[in-house]
Amino acid sequence: MRAIATHPAARGLNDDAAVLDVGGETLVLTHDTMVEGVHFLPEQDPADVAWKLVATNMSDLAPKGAQPLAVLLSYQLGRDDAAFLDGLQAALRHYGDAALLGGDTVRAPGPQSVGLTAIGRATHRPVPSRGGSAAGDALWITGPVGAAMLGFEALQAGTGDSSAYRRPSALLTEGQLLAPLVSAIMDVSDGVLLDASRMADASGVTIAIDRMAVPIATPEDRRDEALRWGDDYQLLFTLPAGVLPPCPAFRIGTVLQRQGAPILLDGAPVSGRLGYEHG
Amino acid sequence: MRAIATHPAARGLNDDAAVLDVGGETLVLTHDTMVEGVHFLPEQDPADVAWKLVATNMSDLAPKGAQPLAVLLSYQLGRDDAAFLDGLQAALRHYGDAALLGGDTVRAPGPQSVGLTAIGRATHRPVPSRGGSAAGDALWITGPVGAAMLGFEALQAGTGDSSAYRRPSALLTEGQLLAPLVSAIMDVSDGVLLDASRMADASGVTIAIDRMAVPIATPEDRRDEALRWGDDYQLLFTLPAGVLPPCPAFRIGTVLQRQGAPILLDGAPVSGRLGYEHG
Repeated sequence: MRAIATHPAARGLNDDAAVLDVGGETLVLTHDTMVEGVHFLPEQDPADVAWKLVATNMSDLAPKGAQPLAVLLSYQLGRDDAAFLDGLQAALRHYGDAALLGGDTVRAPGPQSVGLTAIGRATHRPVPSRGGSAAGDALWITGPVGAAMLGFEALQAGTGDSSAYRRPSALLTEGQLLAPLVSAIMDVSDGVLLDASRMADASGVTIAIDRMAVPIATPEDRRDEALRWGDDYQLLFTLPAGVLPPCPAFRIGTVLQRQGAPILLDGAPVSGRLGYEHG
Repeated sequence: MRAIATHPAARGLNDDAAVLDVGGETLVLTHDTMVEGVHFLPEQDPADVAWKLVATNMSDLAPKGAQPLAVLLSYQLGRDDAAFLDGLQAALRHYGDAALLGGDTVRAPGPQSVGLTAIGRATHRPVPSRGGSAAGDALWITGPVGAAMLGFEALQAGTGDSSAYRRPSALLTEGQLLAPLVSAIMDVSDGVLLDASRMADASGVTIAIDRMAVPIATPEDRRDEALRWGDDYQLLFTLPAGVLPPCPAFRIGTVLQRQGAPILLDGAPVSGRLGYEHG
């Protein structure tokens, strides 16, 4: 989105899930698209691709404290459509039986593109965003990062456990528990450093991260990579000082008044790539 | 969708827009995807592509009597993203200022794929469907078919008026006027014969169409083609005998008890292709 982010119509794309008040309810809406060769490997099991498509959308609902209601599918016919739909059904059942309400299918040349729109119901209002962190808050994360990186490597190597990459978990229950308490929250889809810097920018603060406090699923010598890899879908959030999270979580930093850089790692600005940048 | 229509998860894809009750309101939801080289020409103005993407989605809301609320965009970066977004903004403004709430952008090789999810609010309940026609009803259409065919030919030839193909109209106002009265209604996106046969199948009836009564935008010698071309987005609907439409419309047939064929044209079943079949 960087390429077109300056267009007034483009605000909000690739951002937090959207919020829409309807009747007496508040809906949370999101759409994610995945393309063969970009977001999944051509040889991957279509059922895994469908699972991940559902999980990434559910992970957009999670930081909003939303409960899934329904999805719409955009499906380019592919190698094994029945396997894809089996995976989709299984994933929807896993995430609270959100209904597949409709969508569109197309037959087209080129890499397969699949998209999903997910609609949820906010369980707490106001719906939290990534933009509410204040100086003095503590930064937390629900679990380790780097597992998807190891899973991706296992998938490419054809050996080892690739499930963290193929079938990530969206933390809907944790999101619903956290929504009433957090000052800011988002899912970590593009790397903890990059997503923390987005939270800092949206909140107008600087976030100081304690490098060794971030839980990682990798060997220690790969810590810097684990902090820059996405696809883990942990929840990153800030709580006012003294408030403890209602679910398992790790304290990894502190929110400061805005300084030059959006994030500090062990007290210093971070140079170079922070994580996965979208097209 | 024919290829995967037998999968239980696939019911409802490529069908009527979906209906979801939320917070005292009834939402109408739809998603359409358009692919370069399949649904639009590679050399088309991106602003026209955006306009058509909005119009096709709005045309799914129209037969539900829905008022547009919001859209989510799935956008593969292309040749001129600013032109696309300009066209999108103009079309959204045209259709009642539906808000672009969010979405996703991807950078990918291969033909450009763009998708839109549209969300509207039902103005009348129960929300009409294509499945309510009963023997004795009359079949109506809001206006001529074949204009998009001529527009497509003009666009390919590089001369003449191609606007009906490039910038179709979605009949939202007509849909809202019709919703309280119709027994069945749908938009004509794939050809009046094919869409009438779908209405007949969904309603469990046979629909007898008077070939010469169907208004066409083409010369008379192209009537049979005009009845099979899509993209005109007229509304096709049935009314109980004696009920007159509250908007301009043409009576083109009569609903009969189910016989062998879903539709009869001047009293005889139609052989061969009825219209545009999706992948």
